[in-house]
Amino acid sequence: MRRLSFGSSLVVFICLLLATSARAQKPQHPLDALNAQEYWAAYDAILGSGHFDDDTHFESILLHEPPKSVVLAWKPSDAIAREADVVLLRKGRVIEARVDVAARKLGSWKEIPGAQGPIFDSELMGLTETILEDERVKKALAKRGITDLNTVACEAVPVGFLAFPEQKDHRVGWAECMVGHHSYHTWSRYIGGLSMEVDLAEKKVLKVFDDEVVPVAPPSNYEQTPEVSRPGTKPGIISQPLGPSFQITDGEVSWQNWHFRFRLDSRVGPVVSLVSIEDHGRRRSVMYEGSLSELFVPYMDATRGWSTRVFSDAGVFYPGGILQSLKPGLDCPSSAVYFDGLSSDEKGSPALRPRQACLFERFAGDIAWRHEDGSLVFGRPSRTLVLRAAAVVGNYDYMLDWRFEQDGSIRVAVGATGIIEARDVADESVSGSAGHSNHPGEEYGQLVAKNTLGVNHDHFFSFRIDMDVDGQNNSFMIHRLAEKELPGSGPRKSIWVAEPSIAGKEHDAMMDVRLEKPSMWLFVNPNVKGLLGHPTGYEIMPGVTAASLLSPDDGVQKAGAFSAHQLWVTPYKEGEFYAAGTYPNSSTGEDGLAAWTKKNRNIENTDIVAWYTLGFHHVPREEDWPVMPVMWHDFVIRPFHFFGQNPVLDLPKEP
Amino acid sequence: MRRLSFGSSLVVFICLLLATSARAQKPQHPLDALNAQEYWAAYDAILGSGHFDDDTHFESILLHEPPKSVVLAWKPSDAIAREADVVLLRKGRVIEARVDVAARKLGSWKEIPGAQGPIFDSELMGLTETILEDERVKKALAKRGITDLNTVACEAVPVGFLAFPEQKDHRVGWAECMVGHHSYHTWSRYIGGLSMEVDLAEKKVLKVFDDEVVPVAPPSNYEQTPEVSRPGTKPGIISQPLGPSFQITDGEVSWQNWHFRFRLDSRVGPVVSLVSIEDHGRRRSVMYEGSLSELFVPYMDATRGWSTRVFSDAGVFYPGGILQSLKPGLDCPSSAVYFDGLSSDEKGSPALRPRQACLFERFAGDIAWRHEDGSLVFGRPSRTLVLRAAAVVGNYDYMLDWRFEQDGSIRVAVGATGIIEARDVADESVSGSAGHSNHPGEEYGQLVAKNTLGVNHDHFFSFRIDMDVDGQNNSFMIHRLAEKELPGSGPRKSIWVAEPSIAGKEHDAMMDVRLEKPSMWLFVNPNVKGLLGHPTGYEIMPGVTAASLLSPDDGVQKAGAFSAHQLWVTPYKEGEFYAAGTYPNSSTGEDGLAAWTKKNRNIENTDIVAWYTLGFHHVPREEDWPVMPVMWHDFVIRPFHFFGQNPVLDLPKEP
Repeated sequence: MRRLSFGSSLVVFICLLLATSARAQKPQHPLDALNAQEYWAAYDAILGSGHFDDDTHFESILLHEPPKSVVLAWKPSDAIAREADVVLLRKGRVIEARVDVAARKLGSWKEIPGAQGPIFDSELMGLTETILEDERVKKALAKRGITDLNTVACEAVPVGFLAFPEQKDHRVGWAECMVGHHSYHTWSRYIGGLSMEVDLAEKKVLKVFDDEVVPVAPPSNYEQTPEVSRPGTKPGIISQPLGPSFQITDGEVSWQNWHFRFRLDSRVGPVVSLVSIEDHGRRRSVMYEGSLSELFVPYMDATRGWSTRVFSDAGVFYPGGILQSLKPGLDCPSSAVYFDGLSSDEKGSPALRPRQACLFERFAGDIAWRHEDGSLVFGRPSRTLVLRAAAVVGNYDYMLDWRFEQDGSIRVAVGATGIIEARDVADESVSGSAGHSNHPGEEYGQLVAKNTLGVNHDHFFSFRIDMDVDGQNNSFMIHRLAEKELPGSGPRKSIWVAEPSIAGKEHDAMMDVRLEKPSMWLFVNPNVKGLLGHPTGYEIMPGVTAASLLSPDDGVQKAGAFSAHQLWVTPYKEGEFYAAGTYPNSSTGEDGLAAWTKKNRNIENTDIVAWYTLGFHHVPREEDWPVMPVMWHDFVIRPFHFFGQNPVLDLPKEP
Repeated sequence: MRRLSFGSSLVVFICLLLATSARAQKPQHPLDALNAQEYWAAYDAILGSGHFDDDTHFESILLHEPPKSVVLAWKPSDAIAREADVVLLRKGRVIEARVDVAARKLGSWKEIPGAQGPIFDSELMGLTETILEDERVKKALAKRGITDLNTVACEAVPVGFLAFPEQKDHRVGWAECMVGHHSYHTWSRYIGGLSMEVDLAEKKVLKVFDDEVVPVAPPSNYEQTPEVSRPGTKPGIISQPLGPSFQITDGEVSWQNWHFRFRLDSRVGPVVSLVSIEDHGRRRSVMYEGSLSELFVPYMDATRGWSTRVFSDAGVFYPGGILQSLKPGLDCPSSAVYFDGLSSDEKGSPALRPRQACLFERFAGDIAWRHEDGSLVFGRPSRTLVLRAAAVVGNYDYMLDWRFEQDGSIRVAVGATGIIEARDVADESVSGSAGHSNHPGEEYGQLVAKNTLGVNHDHFFSFRIDMDVDGQNNSFMIHRLAEKELPGSGPRKSIWVAEPSIAGKEHDAMMDVRLEKPSMWLFVNPNVKGLLGHPTGYEIMPGVTAASLLSPDDGVQKAGAFSAHQLWVTPYKEGEFYAAGTYPNSSTGEDGLAAWTKKNRNIENTDIVAWYTLGFHHVPREEDWPVMPVMWHDFVIRPFHFFGQNPVLDLPKEP
């Protein structure tokens, strides 16, 4: 979830670019991100519409993607229709506006009844004064001996699903206060047992709960490292004296045989598009578009104020943009090229964040292939092109990688690091418990420091992958690996066989990873055959992942229903972008993947979209505190009967 | 499986080292590999024993590991008892001898009735003449129009489990012939439909099967690449001007906080041992020993000669050593340090293979951890120490990595590349079939080239991981993640909780990866508690893996029974090294993990060993031909409540 640290304020880099700068140039392609001028055009259209008033705030200004047919038909000499989707919040009510950016004109203006708009930082962080003035809170703080209110800050988190009836008309949050004294951040410094139900929009304290008095945990200062860092680390230098091997022309990245575009979206981060690969001089389409779609993080603590900690990190916390700046030399190697990005702030002004993505060639010392034959080794060294961004949603930092491999595969990887959510508890340790049976204080997590319970939780990332293998019309082919008994007369009793089938409808394509019933997931073009007669295809190979363990009839699970399966396949439909729906916080399952697929639409030989769920359960360990060593998960999109043969025989012999 | 290419011969680097060279120095530690002098001492002891005759061949000379108690009690000033295990083959019968290397004396000499010893290259490759002189074969070749026998080579593969009654007393193999004309290797050039059951030891053709006539597939020359390689690849240079950050002292590798030893074993490759990590000046034990234990590769083709293609690649093909030389600049980056290795040949002489392992620091441009807070990014870049070797078992090349991370975790990774096994078939393509239903010719695999069926198969690697977390006595703790319903009154219906338990016996510790019933696998020391009271521990985190789909009562599955589970835990017992038994080819399940664990021994608070199964099913694709792009799988051994906090806060800020 999103949280700013104690004492910090939102640093906004206002974009002051002149019309002559590169950034302000006309967009070069229909899928380009909105530039600063276009943000202002949207702003002007909204303000000039007659609908705007002082109570109206900008949740977001996002590129409205043109229909796929328009994009695919577009040529560089054509004009570019540019539209923006604007979400506004007025007294807790959501308004959706569409703006014709080129004409600076409002297209539509529509209130969305019942929708909970995403959350502003100002809503989360703006309640300290109100809360600290509440008499009930004052009493509770006094009871705990906390009198220096100067270093106390309070913050709210939204209630992450429809848990309370009052959410129907109110933006309900759950607030706690933290002690800043003795620390430069407050991640472990909750004032335990004191929580408030609050109205985020009206900035009101609704209820105060003064439960068990819990000591404030000791400070945890991850950056106060020893003055002398670990010795014995000799420098390692990666250099590219002739520069990188990729080119960017009119916004298109070309590297080795790959071509693709990308934009940085405030809600879902990097959106990779029009991915094609050159094969004997022919550009062949692989993927129309790929991006994160949602990130669902339910916590597993039944105590008050914690049972509603269920976050749809992208869909709820994206105002201002989920991507944060990358740090050169840390997040990307010295040879990386960086890309800035724009997001709108609460007032609708575009703000520039430098280095929101980087692109670099990765040389890890690995092979593309090799074979030893008669004491001679044949093979080729490999390199990878990495497009990287960092989404920071309060405590957690997520590295988002799109790794283009020379062999035609794309590895999508997520590295989770940052600060785990911890709750202050009475226990200093688990001493006295048997050690191997559950310590009573650890029902909902693990002690990671004195009085600090790292709370169990899940992360489920939904990636939207619009495959276009050799064209738009594809089918989803499942190879199910099944045991086959052999006749008793032979030397062998059993083998397995791969049984291919084509999924006709969406319900045939809800796939789970099961070791005892394995299957392979192919996206094939039934209309294009290779030399051997196979339909050309790409496979989505799952990595380590997880399935939700929550009850399907739980409101939490209804909101994050995509987490029930590791793969879904839908027909391409305009507007179906967000796996947990456009407004996940108020979702009861009526929007998003699970809702759309209820129609059980045809997915055979048509334009289809894959939705991969990358998930993991997280039981925190002491090593995850006070900051968590990065943990990577990934999946691979790889050619399967696409190239006719190994596509990396022609690599240079030198790295 | 092991196969030498057509026209090649075994190039043996005979070790001619002088007594004064470094390699011939006295061993520095009880776990060091046998040096050349020790090989010769074993040889001399066997020849001088009076038991040796001209019909006796050396299968292997391996270090006989001293008991763990002896190794752990050993100090540098102590003498080192050195023994060798020698396996000999006399007229198809296996003899096990133990040699006291220091005394150059035979300790024991024992015939092992019923055991099938591992296979020599000379057995696989030595049958061409015999086969081509067989009248039945001549007739079959003539029928196929093959008259130039000069370029025909035949080779056998052993029958990989007890499939035929005649295996009781004979070394039975299955042979095919290949046409070398038009190619520099013969991987796709089988003479289909002609196969021979042969006696490998007696070099006799037992039966000839002349089935369907199948055209020989076109040649596949992976190294005959275009004269101009892929353009646009600019150089990437990794340099370490001050050298690597690791030191090797008396055979011990020290890097960052890690210390470990390793030896290169002919049968299982790198054996990493005495792995400890420095924690605030204290050396803490993590792992006594870790290595590959077996590699089981059953093929899934029911046709004659193929249904018995079931390979225990380490245990059956290791004579001469499974590791092959690494190629600098290809297999390891330019900054790598290389290690040579010794194996005995069929005559018992030690042969040196250069560069059997490499050690290097890997800079991939990644972070150890990071957090963005108020527009400032804190974090540390990371690097990894990689110990790498390449096991080449005929067609397949397996990169074996032990990757030591700065955060106290070890990633064990296997990269599979090389040549897939293919069978020649009548089909040029699958044209005419519906494309989405199974083409009849593809029941057992996929067409990867004209007339070339890439045959479906599995790879199951068993890694033996002798964890010693803070000492020898450990327990295996399972955290089972289970749904818990919450009382109806609250806002939430369900969470999951982690339910820890200690496995008392081996049967409690046969673990499967199941997304719907996830569990965490911890090795804890119940006698050592951290500051928070948790037993100190390390977790084995599975990566992408697979379970065998074969019937448990199939002889194939009995031989490779370890593949039924992803984790097994046993008490440490001398001699329990090989997951599929010492002689997997003749195993009917009476040796190996499944057999040992039948006793259901105590594994609580005692010296325990983990056995992790890394597996994958392989349905070949066109891209895997003629040589397969490398495919990595891995698992992670990581601290869990071991360090008390994040152990990489003290890393330098520069990469």
